[in-house]
Amino acid sequence: MPNTDAIGVGLLGMGVVGSGVVRLLQERTAHFRKVRGVDLALRRVAVHDLSKPRSVELPKALLTDRAEDVVDDPEVQIVIEVIGGIDPARSLCLRALKVGKDVVTANKALLAEQGGDLFRAAAQHSAHLAFEASVCGGIPIIRALTDGLVANRIQSIYGILNGTTNYILTRMTDGGGDFEEMLGQAQEKGYAEADPTMDIDGTDAAQKLALLCRIAFRVDLSHQQILKEGIAQTSPLDIDFARELGYTIKLLGIAKAVEDRIEARVHPALIPSDALLANIKDEFNAVEIVGNAVGPQVFYGRGAGQLPTASAVVSDLLDLAEHRLTGRTPGPSPLAALQEAVPIPPDEIETSFYCRFTVYDRPGVLARIACIFSEERISIATVIQHGRSETAEGTVPLIMTTHEAREAAMRRAVAKIDRLPIITEKSRIIRIEEL
Amino acid sequence: MPNTDAIGVGLLGMGVVGSGVVRLLQERTAHFRKVRGVDLALRRVAVHDLSKPRSVELPKALLTDRAEDVVDDPEVQIVIEVIGGIDPARSLCLRALKVGKDVVTANKALLAEQGGDLFRAAAQHSAHLAFEASVCGGIPIIRALTDGLVANRIQSIYGILNGTTNYILTRMTDGGGDFEEMLGQAQEKGYAEADPTMDIDGTDAAQKLALLCRIAFRVDLSHQQILKEGIAQTSPLDIDFARELGYTIKLLGIAKAVEDRIEARVHPALIPSDALLANIKDEFNAVEIVGNAVGPQVFYGRGAGQLPTASAVVSDLLDLAEHRLTGRTPGPSPLAALQEAVPIPPDEIETSFYCRFTVYDRPGVLARIACIFSEERISIATVIQHGRSETAEGTVPLIMTTHEAREAAMRRAVAKIDRLPIITEKSRIIRIEEL
Repeated sequence: MPNTDAIGVGLLGMGVVGSGVVRLLQERTAHFRKVRGVDLALRRVAVHDLSKPRSVELPKALLTDRAEDVVDDPEVQIVIEVIGGIDPARSLCLRALKVGKDVVTANKALLAEQGGDLFRAAAQHSAHLAFEASVCGGIPIIRALTDGLVANRIQSIYGILNGTTNYILTRMTDGGGDFEEMLGQAQEKGYAEADPTMDIDGTDAAQKLALLCRIAFRVDLSHQQILKEGIAQTSPLDIDFARELGYTIKLLGIAKAVEDRIEARVHPALIPSDALLANIKDEFNAVEIVGNAVGPQVFYGRGAGQLPTASAVVSDLLDLAEHRLTGRTPGPSPLAALQEAVPIPPDEIETSFYCRFTVYDRPGVLARIACIFSEERISIATVIQHGRSETAEGTVPLIMTTHEAREAAMRRAVAKIDRLPIITEKSRIIRIEEL
Repeated sequence: MPNTDAIGVGLLGMGVVGSGVVRLLQERTAHFRKVRGVDLALRRVAVHDLSKPRSVELPKALLTDRAEDVVDDPEVQIVIEVIGGIDPARSLCLRALKVGKDVVTANKALLAEQGGDLFRAAAQHSAHLAFEASVCGGIPIIRALTDGLVANRIQSIYGILNGTTNYILTRMTDGGGDFEEMLGQAQEKGYAEADPTMDIDGTDAAQKLALLCRIAFRVDLSHQQILKEGIAQTSPLDIDFARELGYTIKLLGIAKAVEDRIEARVHPALIPSDALLANIKDEFNAVEIVGNAVGPQVFYGRGAGQLPTASAVVSDLLDLAEHRLTGRTPGPSPLAALQEAVPIPPDEIETSFYCRFTVYDRPGVLARIACIFSEERISIATVIQHGRSETAEGTVPLIMTTHEAREAAMRRAVAKIDRLPIITEKSRIIRIEEL
């Protein structure tokens, strides 16, 4: 007997996350009814292939292979989109929002690329668009920013936002092997996709960072405006030298409010080995948020995976259902009408740097490099040069760290250094973040 | 000109936290109006002494030294209680709830000791009782449990819930000195109160743990039902031996759902030095929550202090104001009608143990102790005995760790061992948690 008082839920997609959502709903619906007074009823589920066997049991009658059936079902008030990708996810979400249905999505690519349109459609039609699952999976980081830390001006965000790259860097740090080997291992273990490009090159982290900036700083920042550098160039040598200097290498997403501009970047960074973020291992995510009132806070957990992601989807679903039950209409949407972000141009960003130069092992080399740094007014903090050359070419790595310097000055210096005849390989530069 | 559409706020107490609340309200009210569509107006403030100079500016007319004036003011819809202590905080909160006013409190002692009455009064009179600030200050841990992780059955909670003791243990671990010295330093730095008893003996952590259990496991657990042991007996020797074994000593609040019973305890514990919780330093707090869907999550930040606590109060305030604006009435209160907790008797709890015996340095000592452990069916994991005695009495510390053993068996074994003539001091036992 259908429960007609229940809030009707439609599900778009029954892949890994979709199946997880069904499983958690089956497990928790009675609890939500009893403890929260909210009755959820899964009314329609869109799948790609009706004949495919499913890992969760569902009445056949709920399934359809026409996604529009789910969105258009008059008994569906809240639509969950876990198809992924831009289209048709985008048009289906818009279609739901435009008739005042709420949407829960785990689709960070969609929100990072087309978020503006979706948030505006939601605001225009008094619908909600919830997306806790799109950033850091099961970690309630969106809620922390919108609710828990609402009394704060957010000053900065430092996040390990991508599990694949964190797994690879952790394994490399533990001496497991070089980048290619550890990528292979991550793929075997299911922590990296068959085509891991978007993870490895920092795009995934940049998309998540853009979403965090939207909430924390109320700016409409395209992920293309974010300075982005991946981890494919990170070598075990750099990891070892970093350790010797007291640092660990992590792929960080960093965003800061600097007066009325936003500094946003994703790149590998040396961070102090005793910092909390340096101790986030394997496929885990963590985000450090600094608020003017609370100071630093860190949120840690699984950033991906079936049930962690489904957990975030279901928490959004319950929240929206509670809103529906009380007839609450959204107030002015903080996420629809944003100011355009004024990103700080990468050239102006100032950080300290770690540099690895591959040089011929002969006198005067350090002086030549120091001289170029001096011309660019970059001051050197530490120098490491071990023993004598063991390579056939007679080269050694020369490690330097700098004090804070402008990106542009650093690029000029390295370009000049790389033209020196004493240099045998392209120099490797990694930013240092003291946190 | 008074804003009559605004939600009226009354403040009980203008001490450290109260002043912080006023400061954050002054800073954020315009933002809340613009971005959230919520207009908050501070209408009445109760202070102890009207003539005392204040660190924040407030119109004189708002102040009263009669707390009832604040609660009874018809223009006050939400009451913030930051007086602390049981009375008159309790009667004032009840008075507000009984006329349907919402209450925000930072008062963990009140909630841990009289929570049942207050939550029932709130439910009966359709009022809200919010208390994010009462556990771990600015960390949105209550919200995480009630909302962010709502799709999960909570399996366990491991928390560093008290900043004072964590500061002392961190300093001791860094070689700063013994317990008494580091307590003095904590008092100088303002991390410990003049009378630090409730922090040191674990009461404060047990009160917070009882509140977390109420939300996570829906049980009405008195903090007196929690096995409790403080840090005053922790010596630098134990910290050093723990380090040698790969552990760090922290005061933990631990709660687990074990079938239909709750295991809840607060005590110092050896935890692996590479665990996240082992790296929580100084006065910071952190809570690890394991949910069946999300797996482990950690929330980290400042657990006390003026602005972190005020941040949590103001986040609750905004949440309640949004509820008021939309005319939302609370659903069945998940926190009023709880089952009575069935705590697992301490004797039945099983953990591994670290033991430090002070013994005469002579042959056969280890055999005597091992024999007693064997009688109690406790199996030994590791033994450390360094060098020869350097004391006048000819004693040495003998360190043993055990595999999992029942508390009762361990107590019997230690009682027997302490009666052996080879033992010169009361043996020191600390639980080990592998996390």
